[in-house]
Formats: sequence, C-alpha cells, structure tokens
Amino acid sequence: MKPVCLVIGAGAGIGGNVGRRFAAGGYHAVLCRRSDEEGLQQLVAGIEAAGGSASGYLLNAIEPGSIEERVAAIEEELGPIEVVVYNLGAQIGDRALADTSYKAFEMGWQLGTFGLFRIASAVCPKMVQRGKGVILVTSATAAVRGNAGQHSHAAAMGGRRMLCQTLNAEFARKGIHVAHVLVDGMVDAPDTLGKMLGAESFQQLRGQRGGAQDGLMLPAQMAETYYHVAHQHRSAWTHELDLRAYSDLAWWNH
Amino acid sequence: MKPVCLVIGAGAGIGGNVGRRFAAGGYHAVLCRRSDEEGLQQLVAGIEAAGGSASGYLLNAIEPGSIEERVAAIEEELGPIEVVVYNLGAQIGDRALADTSYKAFEMGWQLGTFGLFRIASAVCPKMVQRGKGVILVTSATAAVRGNAGQHSHAAAMGGRRMLCQTLNAEFARKGIHVAHVLVDGMVDAPDTLGKMLGAESFQQLRGQRGGAQDGLMLPAQMAETYYHVAHQHRSAWTHELDLRAYSDLAWWNH
Amino acid sequence: MKPVCLVIGAGAGIGGNVGRRFAAGGYHAVLCRRSDEEGLQQLVAGIEAAGGSASGYLLNAIEPGSIEERVAAIEEELGPIEVVVYNLGAQIGDRALADTSYKAFEMGWQLGTFGLFRIASAVCPKMVQRGKGVILVTSATAAVRGNAGQHSHAAAMGGRRMLCQTLNAEFARKGIHVAHVLVDGMVDAPDTLGKMLGAESFQQLRGQRGGAQDGLMLPAQMAETYYHVAHQHRSAWTHELDLRAYSDLAWWNH
Amino acid sequence: MKPVCLVIGAGAGIGGNVGRRFAAGGYHAVLCRRSDEEGLQQLVAGIEAAGGSASGYLLNAIEPGSIEERVAAIEEELGPIEVVVYNLGAQIGDRALADTSYKAFEMGWQLGTFGLFRIASAVCPKMVQRGKGVILVTSATAAVRGNAGQHSHAAAMGGRRMLCQTLNAEFARKGIHVAHVLVDGMVDAPDTLGKMLGAESFQQLRGQRGGAQDGLMLPAQMAETYYHVAHQHRSAWTHELDLRAYSDLAWWNH
Repeated sequence: MKPVCLVIGAGAGIGGNVGRRFAAGGYHAVLCRRSDEEGLQQLVAGIEAAGGSASGYLLNAIEPGSIEERVAAIEEELGPIEVVVYNLGAQIGDRALADTSYKAFEMGWQLGTFGLFRIASAVCPKMVQRGKGVILVTSATAAVRGNAGQHSHAAAMGGRRMLCQTLNAEFARKGIHVAHVLVDGMVDAPDTLGKMLGAESFQQLRGQRGGAQDGLMLPAQMAETYYHVAHQHRSAWTHELDLRAYSDLAWWNH
Repeated sequence: MKPVCLVIGAGAGIGGNVGRRFAAGGYHAVLCRRSDEEGLQQLVAGIEAAGGSASGYLLNAIEPGSIEERVAAIEEELGPIEVVVYNLGAQIGDRALADTSYKAFEMGWQLGTFGLFRIASAVCPKMVQRGKGVILVTSATAAVRGNAGQHSHAAAMGGRRMLCQTLNAEFARKGIHVAHVLVDGMVDAPDTLGKMLGAESFQQLRGQRGGAQDGLMLPAQMAETYYHVAHQHRSAWTHELDLRAYSDLAWWNH
Repeated sequence: MKPVCLVIGAGAGIGGNVGRRFAAGGYHAVLCRRSDEEGLQQLVAGIEAAGGSASGYLLNAIEPGSIEERVAAIEEELGPIEVVVYNLGAQIGDRALADTSYKAFEMGWQLGTFGLFRIASAVCPKMVQRGKGVILVTSATAAVRGNAGQHSHAAAMGGRRMLCQTLNAEFARKGIHVAHVLVDGMVDAPDTLGKMLGAESFQQLRGQRGGAQDGLMLPAQMAETYYHVAHQHRSAWTHELDLRAYSDLAWWNH
Repeated sequence: MKPVCLVIGAGAGIGGNVGRRFAAGGYHAVLCRRSDEEGLQQLVAGIEAAGGSASGYLLNAIEPGSIEERVAAIEEELGPIEVVVYNLGAQIGDRALADTSYKAFEMGWQLGTFGLFRIASAVCPKMVQRGKGVILVTSATAAVRGNAGQHSHAAAMGGRRMLCQTLNAEFARKGIHVAHVLVDGMVDAPDTLGKMLGAESFQQLRGQRGGAQDGLMLPAQMAETYYHVAHQHRSAWTHELDLRAYSDLAWWNH
C-alpha cells in the first residue's frame, strides 16, 4: 500500500504539481479542490497516465466537517496520510477596508488559518501514533508583511504562519515535520493567477515574462522543493523557506 | 467637548491605566469591558475623583454589533473618537492541540483579530473624514513567534499584527496612526495575570518580583508610552514597539 | 552638576536636535561630530541661547582611541554620562558591488558597528557601577533588509542591530537601557540628506514634501521620542521602535 | 572539465560533508581550511576513494589576498567556480562585553562578514559573465537575534545576513543564486562543536543525543539540502531557510 499524500487545494498550479511530484515518488496522491470536477479528473488522469496513483475529490473546505470526513475516509480506505500539502489560498485581490466585508474577512480566516488548524487537528493524532508525518503549508509574503488592501489576506496568512510555528513547537519532537513555504512571486497557475487576471492578461504576462520559462514561478519546479523538504532527514529539517523567481525582487526590495 | 479615548478591554491592567492616562491628558475616557460592572465603575470613579472625565460600559466584543453600536453611540452622544485603544487579549494559557477546541480557536480569532477589524471598520471612515485618529493595539510576542500550546493565541495575534500593517498601509496617509505595541512580559494586572495564576500565586509572584516595583510590568508606566505614541508628530510616527521590564529576558533570549 | 547626554554624530539633523532636547530637559549636552567646527559651535550656541548647557567637540570616530578618550575626559571633567546617543550613519548611497571598495566596506563597519561596540565598551562599566544608563542607537531599515547597492551600509546596520540585542541581553538587568531606533524615511537634515542630494535637489524635495512640515521626518519631532524612550520607567522599556512620516510607505510596502 | 564547488571552511562538519556531496554530484570539490593539513588530506582522500574529485588547500581567510588569490588560481587551473560554500564560523563562545577585546570583535567581522564580501567581490564578476553561479552561506541564529555574550558573533552574523540580501538584490537577475542557511542547533562536527566542548563532553553529548543519530544535526544530511538548493530551477529559488533537528526547540521557543 502506497503512502498517501493529501493535497488540499489542488488546482493546475502548485497543488496539482506537488501532487504529481509525490505520485512520481511513489505516493498515492489525493487531490482535493472546491470545484471543477473536469479539471480535477484531468489531473488524476495525467498522474495515472504517467504511471502514478491518484484520486480526486471535490471538497468545500469552508463546510463544517468536510476536511475531517475526508481525512477519516482516506485513512480508512486508502491508508495512512504521510504528507499533507495545505495549499488553500485566501487572496481576494486588493480591497480597501470599506470594501472588505465582514464575510470576506472571515472567509480569509476560514481558508487561511482555520482550515489548517482543522486539518492539523485531524491528522496530527494519527501521525503522532505513527511517529511520523509531514505537513507542508503553502504561504505568501502576506504572512510577514501587510500591504494596502490586503486586510483579509494578510491577517489570514499571519495567523497561518504563527500556527505553523505552534504546531512545530508541539509536534516536531513527535516526528511531525511542519514547513511554512513562503511563496514570494507570481506563479504560472491558470487556476489562480490566471483567473484573477483574466485569460488575456494572463497570456500577455506569460509572454512578457519570457514564455513562462522563468519569470513566473513554475509550479512543477516548485514541487521539487516541496518534495525535498518532505524527505529531509529528521536531524536537519527546514521549517521555513522562501521561493522566488531569479528575475523577481524580494518583497522588501520593491 | 473633550476628545474621546475609547478603550476596548479596560480592566485594572493596561486598559484601565491607559484610560486613566488619557483622561489625565484631557480626554474623555470611555472604558469598555466584558464583565464586572463594579470594577468598571470603580475605574470610572477613580478617574473622576482625580478630576478626569470617563464613562464605562459592559461590552461583549464577541456579540455581533456590540462594538459597532458602541462606536456609533459614542460618536453621537459624546463626540469624536480620537483615540482607540484595542486591548482585548486572547491568551487562554498553554493547551495541546488536542485540547484546543474549534470553538476556542475561533474565539481567539474573534477577540484577537476580527474585533480589531470590526472596530477599524467602524472608526476609520470617521477618522478619515476628520483627517486624524489614533488606533493603539496592545499585542504580545505571540504575534511574532509561536510557542507550544499557543495555537489559538499565536494565530490570533499573528493575524492582529498583519492587520495593523495593512491598516497603516491604507490609512497612515489619511492621518490615522496605527501602532502595534508588543508587550513582552508579565503585566502587574490583577484582572488578567492575577486571574490566570490565582490570587495566591499572583501575590507570591509580586513578592518575588520586588513588590511589583519593577519585575512585573507596571501598567501605569506602560500607559505613559501609549500616551506618548498617540501624540507623536505625524512626521515621526512609531508603528511598532516593544515593552519589556528591565529585569526580564527578551523573548528570543529565553 | 547636570547629567551628561553624549551625542556621537551631532549634525543639524537628528543628533543636534536630540542634543537640544536633552539640554532642554536639564542635561548637559556633549555634541561630537567629525567636521565643521562652525556648525558645531552654532549648535552649542543655540542650546545656550535657549538657556541650556552644552559643549562641542570635533571627533573622528574612525581614529583609534578617539571615542574612548572623549568618554574618559567627559566623565572626569563634566560628570557621569547618563545617556549616549549613537547617531553615526554609514550610508554612502547605492553602489554596485564592483564599485564598493574593501575600504568603503570596512568604513561602513567602523562607523556602523565597531564604533557602537567601542562606546559601549567605554561607558557600560561606568553605567553598571551607577546602576543606570541609556544608550539610544539611531538605525535604519538597512538593519532589517538589504537593498541593491547597500552592501556596506546594510552589513554595517545588520551588525549594529544584533549588537544592540546582545548589549541588552547582558546589561538590561544591570539598569542599562539600549534602544534601537529604526528610522524608516528621509530626514529633513541639511548635513546628511542635504549633502547627499546637493543643495538644490534638497530644497526641491522639501518643497514637494510640503515645506518639510510633514513629508520629510522632522528631527526636532523625532527627538521627542528619543527623549521619551530615555525616560521610560524601567518596568516598561522599549528596545526597538520605528519612526516614519505619516505620508511615507513602510519599507515593505514600496 | 568538472564544474568547481569551492568550500571555504571545510572541516569534518558541514563544510567537508557539503564538499563530499557536491563531489558525488559530479563537481570537483575544492576544500579550504585554516589548519590541519592532515585532516584536509583525509577529506580529499575520502572523496577520491568514493570516486569523486577534490583538492585541498590551507587558507587563512584573515590574511589579505588569501581568498582572492585562491579564487584566481582555481579559475585558471581548475575551471569555473560554479558553487561557493561560505562556511566560516565566527563563534567564540559566550563572553561578557568586558571580556570581548576589540581584536576579537574585529576578528568576528573579518570571518563573519568581510570574508563573504571579499569572496563575493572575487567570484561575482566571473559568475555574471557566465550568467550563473551559486553562493551558499552557512549562518546561525545569531544572524537574527542577539543573545548574551554573543557581541562579536551576533554582530558578524547580522552583517552576514544583510549582505546576503544585498547580494541577491544585485545579482539574482544576473543568474547568481545566494542562499542564507540558518543553522539552528548543534552540529555533530568534531572540528567545531567537538573542539569547543572538549573531546569528553562532546562524546557525552553524542551519547545523550541518541548516538548522534538525530539529536545533533548530521552534516551529511544537511549537505543534501545544500545540494538541493544549489540545483533549484531559477524560477523557484530559495534565498533563506532554516535547518534544525526534529528533537530541538526553535530558537524562539527556548
């Protein structure tokens, strides 16, 4: 039975590519996303076509019980979850405070912070019993600095980062490796950046950035680092790292 | 008509003392706390006995509309809120993940992050119209590092800090000064530290720490810095500062 | 006998104004700067004309023994140094690595880091004996992030900031208060910014920035915060704070 | 001709193991250390016995010209330096300010900060011409917080970290990848930790820490991450990461 890598937030960007990378490394990838059954099945089919093993589920992370039930079902039906990739974003674009509803602010927290708490609550007891486990958390520069219009997103990501630290403080000694991956740049991801910009602007940007060869962050390449971190020897774990394209400025140099 | 200083979280520690300091400086202090009507009235009476002006309200910040309605009533009945002191804590002591309920985690966010978002949403439009305003936010080292057992608190404070930054990024140019005050130590506050430790341990600690002269942080002294920051010239604002007793170690030196 | 406030780096900007503020508060201000005897005597005369007490010395901080001898002479002739303001900058403008000589890099360290180590070595034993003392260190955003062309400056300021922390870790308990003041913006200072930009550009900038009323940081206003921090009660010291004009962006929002 | 990986500070700990890892990956490893010709030759012989390619040089990094001449000689005799591993430590143990001589403080800067500046000045022009290069910098938690007695070390490492950022800001776009590796824990390294503790205490510690299997950081395992970072695709570079044993506390949790 293959170990399971569970990806929460598996679109065609980071999530899907990380799932594919773990499948290539011998894991059964479980891909979860909120919508687009067709896109989901394409991801699964792509992995299987490459000789890997995967399943896909639509999952609305906001819905009470959704994450918890999926975890329980996987553990029962597919086997131990060895790696969780928590990849739900909470970026809603820049909005003035007056244009940020209470609901939007709470939604940011639901996806950005609470969802991570929920999945950690669900998987950590099992990982502790097994003496091992990995939780990789995609994050953003909004976790370390708040820009204008980012009220909901930055508050959510700031909470996410601190939660990664408290999880490590409790669980590292028990064999669970939590890593906070600070993505500092635009990812070549049609399902997120592409939708935010619109198809035309997205293609234009890809053109300017050198055919997406390097200017945008390539999710298949990012996935290599996710995979590496998940397989570090426990005497030398990385708990926080950044990822940024060579051609981009660090967030503090803009 | 005196300018109003609104304190959310006005116990006998930081909140009450900051209110007293602003009252001494010519403000009308509006003190809000969740419970203990008697303690609240003692604070108000103490300020008035010293020649100051104050009012007190019980306010449950979790309750929808509570903060918003209080702000509206103050602006109508008492005058412009020039200073907000957001002093609600979210510390619930160290709890393992398994002992941190979803409800406790959400409560941390309600008090630690969302409440600040709500009061900012309520007062910022008015402050922008007036071209000035101050929001002083009491915070904790949990905003910058997550310790074991602090899942709820650290996630809440990490969000609080990022929110302070996004508020500044939008509103500093419009004359609103948001300051994040990172309290790194134990405060000589019977209503919070005292209740967490219990009366006996609290008095014992005060004894060990030199009669509370210096070892614990004295809230009346902390209030001087809150007052100073609120009155900095707008060409030289402080947005983040720490406060710590001389006898204590910085959080990174423990 | 008045307590002494020793300012290392006392031009017409932060240093001179902080000296003036402390003189107004009852200190004897000792102003030291590398050159411009005339400007120095004007600062002294201005303080005396306002009823304060001051002396001025030309001091080349790079020269071995210069700082140490000045400290010894002050302690013997003028009395105990209660406050040190270490205000030497090390900004040389943006220079590519290829244009940054070893000498320039070392000079940055001499002024930015080593000079602070030297003055701390000279005054801390005396302050420890007296059980009190304050060291206020002007610093820059280069202490927390490195921008292009800032090789010498950022390395120097990064060292300065860590040194402030190690000094606090050793001396806070002995009554010495070290504060790292992170100046995040352009200061309305003819001797530094004025010289770097040239007289004409400097006046133009002051014009654009609203007659230097608010856009540039006004050093006389900054001095109020230096003075406040130096007089905080020891139960509530600030060890790090930023200063920025309301109209400016935080370094991470650019 | 094999690409060259130049290790400055190649003892039996991180430096030697990183050299060995790159040699295993097809590089010619050039190992430089200040003393112990015998230990150096053992490292070289070990690499060659494993089928790799290496050379060793004694190099006193403090000596003017030492680094620069070695770089020039390598480029002429061995080929292009593709990877630099700057692994010189500057830890001298905890010393009170009064026990930290000017010379010790300057030595910290020479090894911790200036040496990196010098090697960057030597290799960056060549790497820019070739459009690629990697500089991996071993660093310590002293780069981000100053503990008591760490005056020299923390000032040196604080400068080192900021210098990594300014190097990235100038050179990332030109294809040079600079990574700051924050080592947060004790490394199982006889040449550094072993010498600092003494042979007996070192063996005792290894015993307590589980036969050095996991409690101490294993340099051969750390080397895997150095190697990974050096080979990240340029669309997804890591510029800062920490390494810590699973059994250890993060520096902020102590």
